[in-house]
Amino acid sequence: MAHVTLPAGLPGIIGPLEQFPATGQHLRALAQELLRGASPLTPGERELIAAYVSSENDCFFCTSSHGAAARHLLGDQSAAVDQVRRDLVEAAIGEKLRALLAIAKKVQMGGRRVTDEDVASAREEGATDREIHDTVLIAAAFCMYNRYVDGLGTWAPDNPDLYDEHGAALASNGYL
Amino acid sequence: MAHVTLPAGLPGIIGPLEQFPATGQHLRALAQELLRGASPLTPGERELIAAYVSSENDCFFCTSSHGAAARHLLGDQSAAVDQVRRDLVEAAIGEKLRALLAIAKKVQMGGRRVTDEDVASAREEGATDREIHDTVLIAAAFCMYNRYVDGLGTWAPDNPDLYDEHGAALASNGYL
Repeated sequence: MAHVTLPAGLPGIIGPLEQFPATGQHLRALAQELLRGASPLTPGERELIAAYVSSENDCFFCTSSHGAAARHLLGDQSAAVDQVRRDLVEAAIGEKLRALLAIAKKVQMGGRRVTDEDVASAREEGATDREIHDTVLIAAAFCMYNRYVDGLGTWAPDNPDLYDEHGAALASNGYL
Repeated sequence: MAHVTLPAGLPGIIGPLEQFPATGQHLRALAQELLRGASPLTPGERELIAAYVSSENDCFFCTSSHGAAARHLLGDQSAAVDQVRRDLVEAAIGEKLRALLAIAKKVQMGGRRVTDEDVASAREEGATDREIHDTVLIAAAFCMYNRYVDGLGTWAPDNPDLYDEHGAALASNGYL
């Protein structure tokens, strides 16, 4: 049971977003801008960062939802979602994205863990200021969303088909 | 030097908020709602939670800024800012706030660390759903803001007088 009263039947973050709309509107708007707004990173790459950080934070609802959204958006690259969770070094992704995910992992562990060398490695693979910024902020934001979902003890379904549906809706419609 | 190019002379989160306004507007609006919007917790109590979580995340800029804001808002309770950082159990604060800060610390460590017992302890001291929710979300949000500030390697001044001035402005004017 969740730690506070939430609307019945709404899984994960959806319950608190509905129950507490004054903050919910800003949490939704931030997610929309981060994951669908203008960025040199594609929505699929950004959902992949969100799913990876959520997995490192052990947040089942967010890992499942954003993993599903990433799979829908990445198309023939969708295997990357599970690959990066298993082994970032061996995943079949581009070197720039690998370097950005390594920065995301450092942010997940703590902001001060990101080193000049981490950033230099990403720049060597062609990463721009904007890509580095967006990666850091997506990773930081999911350290918030994950803690909001689990810190309130929200309910999450087990059925992977439900996340696939939810991910398809997020891929098509976004967060508003 | 910061990991991305930022406007000169703007410390901590202020540089990235100005340099990346599309996300900055939502980060500011969320902070305003969380720390100054309607809540059964006073702005001073909420700034205290923000400063405490920032301290646990070892974010010097946020600890100093929100600690200063909390001191200005808490008035004759301002000693609590340093007391909770040193020893939450012994700090001269009310038992409800102590229980809420203990929940905030669990959220800082990871959302899944919050237990039914943590929440029951807060309720025994009179905490409501809304107070528990606001505590969890403030703690989660500062796990984002702290990582944004430090993950980008932003600059922070040392001079405590500057934070006192900044904190006074935050106490009077908020985040918009």
